[in-house]
Amino acid sequence: MEDEIKEIIKRCDIAIKQEDFESLMNYYSDDDILVVKPGMIARRKEEIKKAFISIANYFNNSIEPTQGEMIILEAGNAELVISETLLNSDKENSEYSMDRRATYVFRKNSNGELLCAIENSYGTDLLNR
Amino acid sequence: MEDEIKEIIKRCDIAIKQEDFESLMNYYSDDDILVVKPGMIARRKEEIKKAFISIANYFNNSIEPTQGEMIILEAGNAELVISETLLNSDKENSEYSMDRRATYVFRKNSNGELLCAIENSYGTDLLNR
Repeated sequence: MEDEIKEIIKRCDIAIKQEDFESLMNYYSDDDILVVKPGMIARRKEEIKKAFISIANYFNNSIEPTQGEMIILEAGNAELVISETLLNSDKENSEYSMDRRATYVFRKNSNGELLCAIENSYGTDLLNR
Repeated sequence: MEDEIKEIIKRCDIAIKQEDFESLMNYYSDDDILVVKPGMIARRKEEIKKAFISIANYFNNSIEPTQGEMIILEAGNAELVISETLLNSDKENSEYSMDRRATYVFRKNSNGELLCAIENSYGTDLLNR
């Protein structure tokens, strides 16, 4: 399952860079959540798509995410991904870190599709803010 | 579901302190994994129970976990818990941090029971070690 997850994350990173949010939404289901920023959560595809559009705008439509070191912890149909997520963009002085230690939860749905359930690029930095 | 998870984690912390590993195993299923230490993973109840016994021994049978700030991200039947996990023990000079930012994944099984799927008390510190 590890290679499958790495491939999905890679495709998502490309879709975000290309602002191809329709393709990106193929990797989300209607139960999923995205931590947009500390204290702000997007729920369900429609909200998540809008959040990605806002994030792209915030970064002057130049955001390019890539992943560094990645650890995947697998427990049956659930996976916890801990990943160094690197953000690159034209924007100077972002108020958010561009080098993150992210936590992503994936799970298999009843059709056997692996989807991102919880996307939290802030990892444990959500604590003590 | 947030209160239910907090109650389960509280009961697990008490069971660990009392070294009541039989009760502790009620909150795990056979798919679950525990990150014992960076690079070492215990899988399935039997291995997880043995790992908890080793951890208790390592800390001179005086380990007492408690939780500080906790953030629970819920997506349908899956939950990502990000928690400040504080460890107290008689042992001096532990080679592991006693103040951790942990990541726990919970999921509901087909009987509706909420169980810990992935227990990683090291959080994103697993990266760049």
